[in-house]
Amino acid sequence: MKKVIFIMGVSGCGKSTVGKLLAQELDIPFFDGDDFHPEANIKKMSNGQPLNDDDRQGWLETLNDLAKKQLTENSCVIVCSALKQKYRDTLSLHIKTETKWVYLSGSFDQIFERLNSRDNHFMPSELLKSQFDTLEEPKDALRVDIGLTPENIIKTIKHELMNTSEFGLFGLGVMGKSLCRNLANNGFKIAMFNRHVDGVEVDVAKNFKTNYPELSEASAFDDISAFVASLQTPRKIMLMVNAGKTIDFVIEDLLPHLSKNDILIDGGNSNYLKTKERCDYLKTKGIHFIGTGVSGGEEGALKGPSIMPSGDLDAYNNVKPFLEKISAKDKNNLPCCTYVGPEGSGHFIKMVHNGVEYVEMQLLAEVVTILEASGQNLDQIADVLDTWKATADSYLLEITIDILRKKEGNEWLVKKILDKAGNKGTGNWTTIASAELGVPSTLIASALFARYTSFYKDERIQLNNNFKTETTSDLNLSTTEILEAYQFARIINHYQGFKLINEASNKFSWDLNLSEIARIWTNGCIIRSTLMETLVEVFKETTNILTNPEVITSIKKYKASAKKVVSQCVLNDVTASCLCESIQFLNGITTVNSSANIIQAQRDYFGAHTYKRIDDDGVKSHHTNWN
Amino acid sequence: MKKVIFIMGVSGCGKSTVGKLLAQELDIPFFDGDDFHPEANIKKMSNGQPLNDDDRQGWLETLNDLAKKQLTENSCVIVCSALKQKYRDTLSLHIKTETKWVYLSGSFDQIFERLNSRDNHFMPSELLKSQFDTLEEPKDALRVDIGLTPENIIKTIKHELMNTSEFGLFGLGVMGKSLCRNLANNGFKIAMFNRHVDGVEVDVAKNFKTNYPELSEASAFDDISAFVASLQTPRKIMLMVNAGKTIDFVIEDLLPHLSKNDILIDGGNSNYLKTKERCDYLKTKGIHFIGTGVSGGEEGALKGPSIMPSGDLDAYNNVKPFLEKISAKDKNNLPCCTYVGPEGSGHFIKMVHNGVEYVEMQLLAEVVTILEASGQNLDQIADVLDTWKATADSYLLEITIDILRKKEGNEWLVKKILDKAGNKGTGNWTTIASAELGVPSTLIASALFARYTSFYKDERIQLNNNFKTETTSDLNLSTTEILEAYQFARIINHYQGFKLINEASNKFSWDLNLSEIARIWTNGCIIRSTLMETLVEVFKETTNILTNPEVITSIKKYKASAKKVVSQCVLNDVTASCLCESIQFLNGITTVNSSANIIQAQRDYFGAHTYKRIDDDGVKSHHTNWN
Repeated sequence: MKKVIFIMGVSGCGKSTVGKLLAQELDIPFFDGDDFHPEANIKKMSNGQPLNDDDRQGWLETLNDLAKKQLTENSCVIVCSALKQKYRDTLSLHIKTETKWVYLSGSFDQIFERLNSRDNHFMPSELLKSQFDTLEEPKDALRVDIGLTPENIIKTIKHELMNTSEFGLFGLGVMGKSLCRNLANNGFKIAMFNRHVDGVEVDVAKNFKTNYPELSEASAFDDISAFVASLQTPRKIMLMVNAGKTIDFVIEDLLPHLSKNDILIDGGNSNYLKTKERCDYLKTKGIHFIGTGVSGGEEGALKGPSIMPSGDLDAYNNVKPFLEKISAKDKNNLPCCTYVGPEGSGHFIKMVHNGVEYVEMQLLAEVVTILEASGQNLDQIADVLDTWKATADSYLLEITIDILRKKEGNEWLVKKILDKAGNKGTGNWTTIASAELGVPSTLIASALFARYTSFYKDERIQLNNNFKTETTSDLNLSTTEILEAYQFARIINHYQGFKLINEASNKFSWDLNLSEIARIWTNGCIIRSTLMETLVEVFKETTNILTNPEVITSIKKYKASAKKVVSQCVLNDVTASCLCESIQFLNGITTVNSSANIIQAQRDYFGAHTYKRIDDDGVKSHHTNWN
Repeated sequence: MKKVIFIMGVSGCGKSTVGKLLAQELDIPFFDGDDFHPEANIKKMSNGQPLNDDDRQGWLETLNDLAKKQLTENSCVIVCSALKQKYRDTLSLHIKTETKWVYLSGSFDQIFERLNSRDNHFMPSELLKSQFDTLEEPKDALRVDIGLTPENIIKTIKHELMNTSEFGLFGLGVMGKSLCRNLANNGFKIAMFNRHVDGVEVDVAKNFKTNYPELSEASAFDDISAFVASLQTPRKIMLMVNAGKTIDFVIEDLLPHLSKNDILIDGGNSNYLKTKERCDYLKTKGIHFIGTGVSGGEEGALKGPSIMPSGDLDAYNNVKPFLEKISAKDKNNLPCCTYVGPEGSGHFIKMVHNGVEYVEMQLLAEVVTILEASGQNLDQIADVLDTWKATADSYLLEITIDILRKKEGNEWLVKKILDKAGNKGTGNWTTIASAELGVPSTLIASALFARYTSFYKDERIQLNNNFKTETTSDLNLSTTEILEAYQFARIINHYQGFKLINEASNKFSWDLNLSEIARIWTNGCIIRSTLMETLVEVFKETTNILTNPEVITSIKKYKASAKKVVSQCVLNDVTASCLCESIQFLNGITTVNSSANIIQAQRDYFGAHTYKRIDDDGVKSHHTNWN
């Protein structure tokens, strides 16, 4: 991969010497940035007038153009003091992944002495001091001590450039492997690590590398120290290990090998509160921590997942080129990856994403149940769902159609699957977060509890004996009615999911952008759908989708069907908890005067909890002796 | 209050001397236990044969009878070595609260020397050694060092007996005050503490004492050190402060004043996991900790609450006489107080109690909503509910009738109450515990979320504008149908609550007794009901009420009404989330083949999560390439 190597630092740090030597050694062109100043700048400087940032802007753009032009043919070395971050941003515009910064670092005294020992040269100490004042040290550069000999400086730079990887991937499970191939397919030089466990996990990384041609340039490790040493600094290491305690163990294993400003990225489904704790902890060690949701499953991770990073924004900017490149692209070809917000907000929205996913999956399972109860077989149901793509397309709808059609011999494979639904904790956490934040995410809880109920298979069989019910084969429901009930519940599901995100954003002052979150969920992730595309626009105007005119129209259109489908399910003993709850919820959230006044009276009656009144300021607390 | 003062300790500790002096000082009768041996024991001893425990049993019972007889007239002093706990249990049988143990404590060397310095007296060291081997030091006694002069020993005992309280109550909120009056009404000498906060909480304890004649013997404090010093050791202090951080602050405030083996009782609604942590922490400080649920609200706490203590069983036995005495009594006059189990199990079941309570309250609110939607006014609804007492009586039903009838002038008071339902966290925790333990407590979540939804009053008004619906005044439901739907949902609610308790008991190895839990909930607590009385018997046979023949019959009888009520609510936009979910749940838990196979297929499709099959051993994991 071609590179532009910028050598930067204050006047007198030795940029030109080092740059020329390096270019010579690597046999690539060398450019001195100072040679590219426009006439006006040269005139100003020769008049003894200092340049201001406006003067510099055009010149920096010229150097950026030069770099881009060179990259079409070859690597190159460019020297330029580049003291401020914004200069460096201009210099590396659009070529961030191809740019390598080398920062020649020395103390004031070291450089002052060096400058004034040169023949016929004197630099006033004020001038050097102003350079140091201006200098914003780069975080993403290779920092080289100018005390080393030029030969050793060149050696260090070459080692960093030539013999090391740009990005590390720790943990080669299903998702880790897919991400490695994705990174490699996008031209990144990666290092891959998987632990060694005698007889269980042996040469996992090496074998993985051998099996995929795109990994020929990747390095494979089962030794942490060698893995970390192989990475360019600041190191960027993505952890793809089991959420929970494992992450903490891995962090402790890595810490002794890391350097200041290295970046760890947790790409697992970690709890958002833990992510904040880990951010804070690692900050004390000088290490940056990015918590990021990654959705798309095995295939998404390979071809382009939706990525939801949060944490330190500066650190994120260093990994942004990698994450954006490997992510899915939306319909405008923008990456389905965005900086979500501070702390664990990325893991929070990934958690809610999964909660919404639980409901979308459950609704499809309920739809299949209803269509089966209406007498259709799985092929017929697949055909029905196929027609729904026109108005209700989603990734989950599509895979459900595939699933229903899958045969093993003459039999439907799905009929052979044990009906005990597993879970990896994110639906559980979403329900817990809802309970803790005071937000009624009823559908997510309902979908979670449906999975829990499924797990009591033995009890279900036992109780079925006690409560046998006749089944009907005519629910008297049209497929359009079922589709509309499904669409109704999906809108409520998305309302609840984004409400939970919005309330968390308010509570934690995360300032999340709901439209942008919907946008990065339009591709790559499991809940991508045409509905999500619609929501990108809806959230540009409101944080509450039930105030959007089109959504209101849809809900009104679908409600009659939803009511009919649910009441028929109730009357015919067909289980459809999420569909059922979607109606209850809409009724509840659109009720002006709820029965909560009764609850308040009861609480005041037995617990003297007091109540507020509607006919005073509404702030005062009242207590009544009720009996 | 009359007392039996038992002076105990090994031979030679000075029991008789001290006992006689004390009786003389207090002007009450003195008895030497040795004088009450039966003929047979005297004969055996004079033959040089040692007594065994069978020999002692009758003698100890005689002393116990003596003590009981004395108590009808006066206090008294009885000396008796009483080396084993079981001897002491017999001696204090049925008079535990009236018994005071004084343990004269000295080292082997101290007593050996003292014994053998007496004239004409020699005790072989083996004999004394066997006494020490037999001695089980009492935990609930006043321990007095025999190194003190007899005068000082008497002074110490008198101070402990005469100038101190038996039981401390920390925190005089609504519940704390009621418990103080309850304890005082039951003849206990209590010390009451409330903090001093300038201008906010001033002389709370003193003013409280002045207002209630039953507190004339109680001591009032706003100084922690004086409060603790006023209590007999081992001190028994019940904390009635806000759950959460406050408990920890209070514990830290108390710790410097406490002595080894003192007992703290947390009677607030603390989180069960925190209670375990506090147990463990206080154990390191030599302090016992009892976490106890207390239910009954203000009135229950005064007249007899349901009490659910857990933690260290030994420590519990010390506070048992107090807690049992002040608790409500069941229909067989047994205390509605029982040792629940280890760790935070008492707070766990109190939490679930409150979760069940949320649902019972919500179901009544829904019933009122349905009856109102059917065109009845609140007085008419109260009359309907009154007729339900015959078959569905409960405390919450009764108070709801009072509430509906309460007028302010000509208007119903409840109509003036703002419909935003508060919560103090236990419903929230129950939902979280359900999510964490993998148990589908759907009704509790539903009732919790109904409260949360009520809190979005402004949004409800706004959305009502967007989704106005016509209301009906004829739901075509009879009151019997509504009653049956209500009863149906209540059974499901109790099934879910006890299932959650049972699963927690299994997971944490608490070995909880569901029948005993139901029994202590038949009186004093908020969810007492005739249904709960039935469950006491049901749980003697099973941990799953849906396997009980009578319950099965009831569910089958009620289900048709439940289906009709719920479907009519759905079709007429009447919100009844808990009623609705009760049907969904029963259908779910009685379904042999659920749609969870679809969920498993989806998870395997996008996440390679694998699945189990029904046609092999059910253990192997399978993965399919679905598309």
